[in-house]
Amino acid sequence: MTAPDFVPDPRLSADTVHLGDLALSRVLLMDDARFPWLILVPRREGVSEITDLDEADAQALWQEIRLATGVMRDLAKPDKINVAALGNVVAQLHVHVVGRFRSDPAWPGPVWGFGTRSPYPLHARAQLAERAGALFAAA
Amino acid sequence: MTAPDFVPDPRLSADTVHLGDLALSRVLLMDDARFPWLILVPRREGVSEITDLDEADAQALWQEIRLATGVMRDLAKPDKINVAALGNVVAQLHVHVVGRFRSDPAWPGPVWGFGTRSPYPLHARAQLAERAGALFAAA
Repeated sequence: MTAPDFVPDPRLSADTVHLGDLALSRVLLMDDARFPWLILVPRREGVSEITDLDEADAQALWQEIRLATGVMRDLAKPDKINVAALGNVVAQLHVHVVGRFRSDPAWPGPVWGFGTRSPYPLHARAQLAERAGALFAAA
Repeated sequence: MTAPDFVPDPRLSADTVHLGDLALSRVLLMDDARFPWLILVPRREGVSEITDLDEADAQALWQEIRLATGVMRDLAKPDKINVAALGNVVAQLHVHVVGRFRSDPAWPGPVWGFGTRSPYPLHARAQLAERAGALFAAA
């Protein structure tokens, strides 16, 4: 079950920055300045639905989802946090934790499939990644 | 924290059928024939984010999410299951468990905000509700 050489689906890696690894999940920051957006990817092969995880991994994922939700709250102070495991495009299990604002362009609709990704300026992305990393470390 | 006279947000009740209650959550069936769609509503007042639940309730919700995901798998045999706590429109914490098919009208996009709800024929809805209830009871 462990995957020391874990590689997330290239479509997840393509648009994200690798922030670090929790006990179970890789933590990615979506490089989209429209929405503060974290993605957790359990480092397990062949897992698509949350029910595919064994009991220990399922518990770890839930703990990490709640941790990431708290980090998002402190990082962006959003009006609402959207938590979702969808996987219609990339079947590999991954969980979105997205900070939403009443003022964001997709509100109140979902972010997935909405418009076109708008990458951060590099300096802003580095700053946000550093701040998110510090919040995970302190949580 | 308990709410014996729990009433879900009227916007959740309006478009759904009440299937039953689990230890923590009310289970609703979305009356939309386009997608097999369950909604879990923890019977707690004033809860909006998953981090608003205390530890015991959070564990119960996760167990019920995984239970509902298994029920959806057996009920509809979908290609993918979408699990999401959004709450942009109705802030009261609720979790969607939606069976998705490559052939459904919104695929691969999200179901929220997509097109117009298409109620089930009454006899089909009753049959689906009965089958879902039996699967929850047997789980």
